[in-house]
Amino acid sequence: MDSIKYILPEKDMPTSWYNIQADLPVPLPPYLHPVTKQVIGPGDLAPLFAMELIKQEVSQERFIDIPEEVQKIYRQFRPSPLYRARRLEQALDTPAHIYYKLEDVSPAGSHKPNSAIPQAYYNMKEGIKRLTTETGAGQWGSSLALACNYFDIELKVYMVKVSYNQKPYRRMMMETWGATCVPSPSPDTNSGRAALAADPNNMGSLGLAISEAVEDAMQRDDTHYTLGSVLNHVLMHQTIIGQECQKQMEMAGEYPDVVIACVGGGSNFGGIALPFVYDKLRKDTKTRVLAVEPSSCPSLTKGLYAYDYGDEAGMAPITKMFTLGSHFMPPPVHAGGLRYHGMSPIISHLHKLGIIEARAVNQLATFEAGITFARTEGIISAPETNHAIRAAIDEAIKCRETGEKKVILFNHSGHGYFDMTAYNTYLLGDLSDYEYPAEKVKEAQSFMPQV
Amino acid sequence: MDSIKYILPEKDMPTSWYNIQADLPVPLPPYLHPVTKQVIGPGDLAPLFAMELIKQEVSQERFIDIPEEVQKIYRQFRPSPLYRARRLEQALDTPAHIYYKLEDVSPAGSHKPNSAIPQAYYNMKEGIKRLTTETGAGQWGSSLALACNYFDIELKVYMVKVSYNQKPYRRMMMETWGATCVPSPSPDTNSGRAALAADPNNMGSLGLAISEAVEDAMQRDDTHYTLGSVLNHVLMHQTIIGQECQKQMEMAGEYPDVVIACVGGGSNFGGIALPFVYDKLRKDTKTRVLAVEPSSCPSLTKGLYAYDYGDEAGMAPITKMFTLGSHFMPPPVHAGGLRYHGMSPIISHLHKLGIIEARAVNQLATFEAGITFARTEGIISAPETNHAIRAAIDEAIKCRETGEKKVILFNHSGHGYFDMTAYNTYLLGDLSDYEYPAEKVKEAQSFMPQV
Repeated sequence: MDSIKYILPEKDMPTSWYNIQADLPVPLPPYLHPVTKQVIGPGDLAPLFAMELIKQEVSQERFIDIPEEVQKIYRQFRPSPLYRARRLEQALDTPAHIYYKLEDVSPAGSHKPNSAIPQAYYNMKEGIKRLTTETGAGQWGSSLALACNYFDIELKVYMVKVSYNQKPYRRMMMETWGATCVPSPSPDTNSGRAALAADPNNMGSLGLAISEAVEDAMQRDDTHYTLGSVLNHVLMHQTIIGQECQKQMEMAGEYPDVVIACVGGGSNFGGIALPFVYDKLRKDTKTRVLAVEPSSCPSLTKGLYAYDYGDEAGMAPITKMFTLGSHFMPPPVHAGGLRYHGMSPIISHLHKLGIIEARAVNQLATFEAGITFARTEGIISAPETNHAIRAAIDEAIKCRETGEKKVILFNHSGHGYFDMTAYNTYLLGDLSDYEYPAEKVKEAQSFMPQV
Repeated sequence: MDSIKYILPEKDMPTSWYNIQADLPVPLPPYLHPVTKQVIGPGDLAPLFAMELIKQEVSQERFIDIPEEVQKIYRQFRPSPLYRARRLEQALDTPAHIYYKLEDVSPAGSHKPNSAIPQAYYNMKEGIKRLTTETGAGQWGSSLALACNYFDIELKVYMVKVSYNQKPYRRMMMETWGATCVPSPSPDTNSGRAALAADPNNMGSLGLAISEAVEDAMQRDDTHYTLGSVLNHVLMHQTIIGQECQKQMEMAGEYPDVVIACVGGGSNFGGIALPFVYDKLRKDTKTRVLAVEPSSCPSLTKGLYAYDYGDEAGMAPITKMFTLGSHFMPPPVHAGGLRYHGMSPIISHLHKLGIIEARAVNQLATFEAGITFARTEGIISAPETNHAIRAAIDEAIKCRETGEKKVILFNHSGHGYFDMTAYNTYLLGDLSDYEYPAEKVKEAQSFMPQV
């Protein structure tokens, strides 16, 4: 019993991104200015983002063409393969059919280049010579380093310190592609210096790293800021994943009953899920769409749905989202890409409307799932991806119990080659779970803006 | 100007391996028994290898069918893509066309599973429950760990200590797939204990690790030994690479003037080159076939062509090959997979007959080439692979000078995700070249057998 690979011909690669804003039953709440608390306009965002990306952020067009230059680079590694995990199904003794979309195949090893490449491209077109960004586990930072390299743009990455220490190879990867990477909090910005002054051992958070990258970009005319998740345009760029899956599921002659992905800011989840949400909204399919987050940083399952800052220093726009508070410092789980206090406004909105589901899982259970996957499908997955695998396995086990032949599809967002020390720690029995830090969340939420 | 990917449809994946023994103008010299020095027979090899592999080792059939069960697992990641490196060509300003075959796409990250999978398969078919092997950089060990996992076989890997220390992630990868991995020399075998007694700081060599793995396998009836390179059957399993390339070059409408790969034991070189050597021998093509080795371990360019031991303790068969002496301890270059004192008998034979060429390159020059490749093609390559990239770039630069539009094809044998510390050291300016250790070679060659 061997697993099956579905390869979409290059000519069938989607040539436009899907923008769910065209199909939302209720429009998204607007972004607010972090200082004035007024509704933000394109002019407010112009110092930070390429104008084309600002337009995409608020566009109501259903499909937006992928520029030919971006398609060409996508084709270096896309369409990515879809697999039916028959070895895993057999090991679980489940009647369910489990499919996974393998986004590891990009040179940066995850889905992140799907947005890094267009973001670098649009900035290049608008004459920008330098970009800044933040990164958690380093998947986004390395992807943007790769993309900037293609378009000859200088890049500075603020990497959350706990991940900078846990995953040195990711930093070296960024440097190999010519980028600069510093641990955040860094002494290079006011936000970083303030955090270090308050606590020299501050291990960083995505919220703080965003503050540093935004502050850096505001200082220089030749520099823009980029974000690897959360925002509407980022999720839209990722929808090429789900659109490819729709064609590949058709090749397999099936349609998913459940679509699963892990969520931190929401980009890989949005990427695979939104085209299937379109089917739910427009074609009345009954597919369940499930976001999986770490129980140590459970914004969707335990956060407040409210206007909050996107970053710790309050420089990024205020958005309505599920949030644990911008001052929340998540425990140092290995899934660094899921350590964000908030959640994409689109994903938050869909969750609030009851269109998607959310579930939180513990770190040990995710590594157990990752080992099962490595020993059946042969693939070693990123700790973030292990969250999706955990939920897919749980769904398949339920099917074993009920006898249902459900079709389960999940996004294999990235490989774990840079996370081998986490596996090592797990195999040695030294990895632990973290309790949900309720008190820290309560305190962090007290910093939320009054709007 | 973007690079182009050539995807061979799954149905066109070759279904047999090519065995060059059918086409050699002069037959290979026989293997000798390490103790009796007499020509070795299948019975002598039976305690070590599956009988089907022993048959393949001496077969004169031109094509040997790939078992359906092996093909199924190959199809998890094969056919692998062929790329035309137009970004690299542009950066080098060369009229040459540069193609590379991307073997990184297997879950273990290199070409090694092409032989690991059939070796594990045939041993499983013959009732073997446990395998041993040696590994240098860990590419082979991790590939065999992956393969043993598919066929439910226990595995113990002896990993050359210098690489065990340099590349801990590879060890963790083997463990994630359920294998056991120890540094060689280890206290687990007589050969290992003797080496440690003579020098507790012995950093190991492939020759010594082979001795340990062979000794271990000889002790137990349920255990066989496997080798990831050098032997005829291993090179034959790898010929799926070159056969795919022939079809993909046809898709591109070109035929290579030069075929390039790095050589340690010879497996990835044999894999891409032998089908093109077939064309040379049978169809009189003029393609140059170039093996690239490290100047710190230059068996083909500086070794003796003579009968020598395959391992340090003299337990593996004696073969006629280019050798630096089985006691040669190569400098600790990062290309751990190329640190072998000898060379595949087939490759040695072809070199002696003048059918292939060899070239030695320095470590720093290979990393420089690797950085150029990463910043143009976007791919971070294994230090071994950087040897092939170096030679391909040098050939392309020659074309720039002469104006020739040569077609260059090289084997991209594996990714460098587990070698980021080597890149880091290079980027920091702390990497060095090693002089050819002539005195050490002279001493090592004094241990060669009298036959």
